[in-house]
Amino acid sequence: MTELRIARRMADIQPFHVMDLLARARALEAAGKDIVHMEIGEPDFVTPQPIIAAGQRALAEGRTHYTPACGLPELRAAISDHYQREQGLAIAPERIVITPGASGALQLVLSVLINPGDQVLMADPGYPCNRHFVRLVEGEAVGIPVTAATDFQLTAELVERAWTARTVAVLLASPSNPTGTLIGAEELAAIHRVVQQRGGMLIVDEIYHGLVYDTKTRSALHNGADIFVINSFSKYYGMTGWRLGWLVAPDAWLRSIDKLAQNIFLAASTPAQYAALAAFTLETQAILEQRRAEFQARRDYLLPALRELGFIIAGTPQGAFYLYADCSRFTDDSYRFVYDVLEIAGVAITPGIDFGSNAPQRHVRFAYTTSLERLREGINRLTKHLTKNL
Amino acid sequence: MTELRIARRMADIQPFHVMDLLARARALEAAGKDIVHMEIGEPDFVTPQPIIAAGQRALAEGRTHYTPACGLPELRAAISDHYQREQGLAIAPERIVITPGASGALQLVLSVLINPGDQVLMADPGYPCNRHFVRLVEGEAVGIPVTAATDFQLTAELVERAWTARTVAVLLASPSNPTGTLIGAEELAAIHRVVQQRGGMLIVDEIYHGLVYDTKTRSALHNGADIFVINSFSKYYGMTGWRLGWLVAPDAWLRSIDKLAQNIFLAASTPAQYAALAAFTLETQAILEQRRAEFQARRDYLLPALRELGFIIAGTPQGAFYLYADCSRFTDDSYRFVYDVLEIAGVAITPGIDFGSNAPQRHVRFAYTTSLERLREGINRLTKHLTKNL
Repeated sequence: MTELRIARRMADIQPFHVMDLLARARALEAAGKDIVHMEIGEPDFVTPQPIIAAGQRALAEGRTHYTPACGLPELRAAISDHYQREQGLAIAPERIVITPGASGALQLVLSVLINPGDQVLMADPGYPCNRHFVRLVEGEAVGIPVTAATDFQLTAELVERAWTARTVAVLLASPSNPTGTLIGAEELAAIHRVVQQRGGMLIVDEIYHGLVYDTKTRSALHNGADIFVINSFSKYYGMTGWRLGWLVAPDAWLRSIDKLAQNIFLAASTPAQYAALAAFTLETQAILEQRRAEFQARRDYLLPALRELGFIIAGTPQGAFYLYADCSRFTDDSYRFVYDVLEIAGVAITPGIDFGSNAPQRHVRFAYTTSLERLREGINRLTKHLTKNL
Repeated sequence: MTELRIARRMADIQPFHVMDLLARARALEAAGKDIVHMEIGEPDFVTPQPIIAAGQRALAEGRTHYTPACGLPELRAAISDHYQREQGLAIAPERIVITPGASGALQLVLSVLINPGDQVLMADPGYPCNRHFVRLVEGEAVGIPVTAATDFQLTAELVERAWTARTVAVLLASPSNPTGTLIGAEELAAIHRVVQQRGGMLIVDEIYHGLVYDTKTRSALHNGADIFVINSFSKYYGMTGWRLGWLVAPDAWLRSIDKLAQNIFLAASTPAQYAALAAFTLETQAILEQRRAEFQARRDYLLPALRELGFIIAGTPQGAFYLYADCSRFTDDSYRFVYDVLEIAGVAITPGIDFGSNAPQRHVRFAYTTSLERLREGINRLTKHLTKNL
């Protein structure tokens, strides 16, 4: 009989717990119950019409063969123009690699950088896939507990304190999932200096970059040409299902990245790449800015409403579409709490356990990826449920 | 100054040498020279119109959000039906995982099976990415030299002889890239028995499965439910640029595979999955069978023509769209040979070095992914070039 051969790394790679919750939510819906979805990490909007039309046109023109491994030259140039226009940054198209989602970009970076046993520092709470990508190549993700005191972001001091002989890289995310918080320009510069001094590499996840409120987005690419920056068409551009992202890499790594992309992806989706060419037009930008305003209005409703209910959220998270809330007034078991809230109140939210091991039992994530009207309905239900149970 | 930190694995991951050759071919074309392309490993046909139309419809309907990590239930069911209809096999949809290309499928399988240092046996020559995927997870790909004597396929005897205490899996490809050869049903069964006896796992790459001539395709899934089978919409279905494949996995690994797919892919492309639903209709099948007949006609022209020129190709390769030719009558340096053929004769072919280290200098790969008319032109040019140089 064949033994069940499962690689050791799989014991360290966790499923998204919210998937089970989502499955339960769907089952409740199938049984006729109405559920307010505040757990889903993707925009509720479909892809903007001009991008869809460009995709349809590409298909009509028979754009169904492979592109070069690093992407369509036109798309790389369009992203380069975008950095010039939006950030005043001159990023050569050759430094921009088109990838199958930001996931593909992260896999490329970590695969070319990380040897077995190497450590990568990252904030906890954080996006869980980040640590799993490190584990996949036999590296060690080191989650550094962060709190509201530093906007749930790493600081130069935290990085310095956590650095060991095995540390080779630091991964930041700004805006962060699950907290929606940004890293300040000065702190980013300070972290960059620490990483440089130690001979490590800085990787910055900017996949929520367009979705920033009250302030202007500033790319880490301003800080130097030795930083890896990951971005995506998924969130701001509303293209989740197309699976398209990009990576800006330092020159010296481009040959390795091209070689690896050839081998593990061949290339990103061709129809998606042609569609994405329409992402930077004025028409699309107008739609995207309208949506950004809508996300901001949702945040501006949800944040005080949750606080009034008794959730603790420090500061004003300025990006993405998440609020990471301390729920310790209601529970010391957030996993059980989210199932109670789902079953009794009909509201789906994500338990802290999906984002690391830094007090997950005291936290839940609210996503404002549903309409204001539905958010209001969710708050009404939570109000009834939580006041009844206090 | 930051040291150039490149992970050790990158030294073992080779670029596709044919990419440089293709770049040179494009440069020659840009300078006005006509090139016959017999190097390209993808069908020249665009995606069949019914699949394109289904993709356009999906976009019109706003199918742009994520699907479940293992794929659209409808598509998994459609593939299950396909196995029933074409192979008389009952494969539960739950065992079918939709992936970003066969590349994604191979990455899932190897990541859940292979620990650092584990060996995977495979034929040399073979598809180079296979060994690179093993290297990516710190495993060791062991290329077993194969020749025309075994149709360039592994045998039970070869597997038995190469097995060590560190061997955990065998990867077969039928039809093979670069040789276009199949593995016989009896030999496959014998290899399966050897692998079972040793407590290893069998992985079979069937991505060229629809493209088989003279004989009927037989899936390795007939041999048991403990085999991993990789397939793709790229080659037979003409969907290369869409990046869509699938994996059939044994039950006991499905949970791990789902967990990993969630983390490293989120899901395969949504528009591609909806488009692929049209791949199994009678209308599409009629187009695909017509294309298969065209590939067969090309092979039937090219094989004797190359032999007449002095290339040695044993037997009649029965699948894919490749002929792997011994070119030792003309050169003992196939890499230099392909560049001479490109520059002087205007014909692009792939050097043996892209497929392993088993006498690559004596081999080249011809792809019949261009029209009969262009193949004839290519043969005319080769005839002039090679007879002049003999």
